[in-house]
Amino acid sequence: MTDTPRLGARVMALIDDLARHTDEPGRLTRLYLSPAHRATAEAVLGLMREAGLAARIDAAGSVVGRLEGREPGLPALVLGSHIDSVVDAGRYDGPLGVAAGLAVAEEVRARGLALPFALEVVAFGDEENVRFPTSLSTSKAWAGQYKPDWLEGRDAAGTTLREALAQFGGDPDGIPALARKPGTVAGYLEVHIEQGPALEAAAQPVGVVSGIVGLTRARCTVTGEANHAGTVPMGMRRDALAAAAEMALAVERLGEAMPGAVATVGSLTVVPGAVNVIPGRIDFTLDVRAAEDADRDALFAAIGAECRAVAQRRGVGFIAETFMDNAAVALDPGLQAALDRAARRLGHAPLRLASGATHDAVAMAVLGPAAMLFVRCRGGISHNPAESITLEDADAATRVLLGTVLDLAGLPH
Amino acid sequence: MTDTPRLGARVMALIDDLARHTDEPGRLTRLYLSPAHRATAEAVLGLMREAGLAARIDAAGSVVGRLEGREPGLPALVLGSHIDSVVDAGRYDGPLGVAAGLAVAEEVRARGLALPFALEVVAFGDEENVRFPTSLSTSKAWAGQYKPDWLEGRDAAGTTLREALAQFGGDPDGIPALARKPGTVAGYLEVHIEQGPALEAAAQPVGVVSGIVGLTRARCTVTGEANHAGTVPMGMRRDALAAAAEMALAVERLGEAMPGAVATVGSLTVVPGAVNVIPGRIDFTLDVRAAEDADRDALFAAIGAECRAVAQRRGVGFIAETFMDNAAVALDPGLQAALDRAARRLGHAPLRLASGATHDAVAMAVLGPAAMLFVRCRGGISHNPAESITLEDADAATRVLLGTVLDLAGLPH
Repeated sequence: MTDTPRLGARVMALIDDLARHTDEPGRLTRLYLSPAHRATAEAVLGLMREAGLAARIDAAGSVVGRLEGREPGLPALVLGSHIDSVVDAGRYDGPLGVAAGLAVAEEVRARGLALPFALEVVAFGDEENVRFPTSLSTSKAWAGQYKPDWLEGRDAAGTTLREALAQFGGDPDGIPALARKPGTVAGYLEVHIEQGPALEAAAQPVGVVSGIVGLTRARCTVTGEANHAGTVPMGMRRDALAAAAEMALAVERLGEAMPGAVATVGSLTVVPGAVNVIPGRIDFTLDVRAAEDADRDALFAAIGAECRAVAQRRGVGFIAETFMDNAAVALDPGLQAALDRAARRLGHAPLRLASGATHDAVAMAVLGPAAMLFVRCRGGISHNPAESITLEDADAATRVLLGTVLDLAGLPH
Repeated sequence: MTDTPRLGARVMALIDDLARHTDEPGRLTRLYLSPAHRATAEAVLGLMREAGLAARIDAAGSVVGRLEGREPGLPALVLGSHIDSVVDAGRYDGPLGVAAGLAVAEEVRARGLALPFALEVVAFGDEENVRFPTSLSTSKAWAGQYKPDWLEGRDAAGTTLREALAQFGGDPDGIPALARKPGTVAGYLEVHIEQGPALEAAAQPVGVVSGIVGLTRARCTVTGEANHAGTVPMGMRRDALAAAAEMALAVERLGEAMPGAVATVGSLTVVPGAVNVIPGRIDFTLDVRAAEDADRDALFAAIGAECRAVAQRRGVGFIAETFMDNAAVALDPGLQAALDRAARRLGHAPLRLASGATHDAVAMAVLGPAAMLFVRCRGGISHNPAESITLEDADAATRVLLGTVLDLAGLPH
């Protein structure tokens, strides 16, 4: 690695350029179909065209550029990620994968390589699912999994996705035609920040993602008895918060005991919530994830059993209502192996790790082999302006992506 | 006790009559200086005058009626409580003590008894301290402890207490003159619902209050690190909610371990509070009460030490800011003994118990000996439309109050 980090510098410059587009002055917010999303999509479109790709913004708002392989019309290896963001976001979550794909396409073209597949670079637009009640709608449009009722979902201002898409310049009626025909997608490779601390802890710039964890979410309610905090002796209380506190600690303890799983109480509200009133009711959310569906089911069941035991012992009510239950998605072993080979040739010892968050790769895995490369991010922080990666890591990731493309093409790298 | 519960029936009828006055149709809400408070004060004034008391509404809105003793101008034994309420209140918290005092005064007059003290019945107006940022302002006006800046405090609508008092027909400038001269108050006896479950558990209609517990309140903040609930392994988290849950359980455990004390986490908020985000910050309130100030200080210190230990072990921040610290108030042993004697002569075995809530007796204890009689309430429930006492218990309490007055007068009972 005596090279200057040329590819990393290109990727960081592209990301910084895209980060100028925001819906909120002073911080980065780029919700699906917003003016800033449009401006970013047009900027990506221009970059793709400058790089010699045949590019367009599709009916759902994704930007896609194509570089033909050694003959036109070959199945495409798709490189990319998304350009929408959460509110008050960092600049790397999403744009890193788009910029890395674009830099690789530029490099392939600059080297005049003839690949046995087309290269496509994509910038999906609805990965964060913040504005509308959707789930990966832009990549699921490609996968043929777009749910028509998503178009009628509304944002906080009451605008439907259909209206917003028309304002954006998209085409709600053109979405069904976005579904890719079988055999036209040779594979999908997505570079993304880890959004966790594992790579930093292992002192590795990149990691190969083994799969996307499954996810179960539930709304839980603990019902005790609200009463005067001064007049009811400790032994005569049915304090819903004390019960919920025991449950939250059980969630933590059982989550720790299941390898590769996480369990979180992220939201908790107290009713009535006054300094001088013993809490009468607690509503909390439970989020359980694991790489193996059986582990997740077992963990969720154990947490439920423990919460019911706490409730029974304390004489309070407990109910849990599951509102999300997504199976784990395995990523392609062949593409994982190719990413791993490319990383090792560049001197890395990449971790193999599950993704705890969902990604467009979940939708793309329906169309063909899909894999992801995670990039170390400082402190594991994401969805935050403090999100940060180094130039050297951006370079390492882009070189691994390039190496993988060459590996898959059977070219020296 | 072969009598019909005549005094209890009178008290229950008076309470039901007063409960007609509310600021909110469909539920009982009677905040200090509201139209419903005015209507209730006028109703009490009329009842006092019908009973032959010399009655008026004072400058702060309290209603007071006086029955002279065997000669005019004797120090007064004051019987009463308050007629303001919380929002969506029960009908007994406050009015029970006013009605019992009035029924006793009616009975003394009906029997033509010549007492060696005057009897006064009072209906204070600002015990719940819901509308304005005050603390027992109407009884503290009598005690000479009215804080002038209370008049400038505002309600939720922005009205100052001074303005509201003028609209009510009171006299902000007349408040200093309400302070009772030393020696004019022979004592104060307040009948009040227990607002707790101890009498019900002991199967006793009444209990003698030994004192008002001291109270320390603090706002606590736990600072962890907000992060993605899917991507950060359990062992690498600094979950503020898990830490706060341990603290809440320590509050409960340490509170239980200190006899006669209670400790409550009544309010708790999670920041950011999203299903998929590890909680980064928790704000919670702590309310610690004990009959003995030394116990309360020791309990508060032990809770703080335990919270700091939890925070240190978990690598989160913890701060606690005390915003209220009221010493316990002892009630008069002589009046307690008189209440106890009267109760025992009527066949009861009254509990001796501390009051976990504050009452106008705290202010009146500044002027002379003060004591309270608690009445069993169903389920220990108060500040709630479900607040309930029985006719028989209302009768028992009123007879104990009457017996105590006769006992103090040296008359047979």
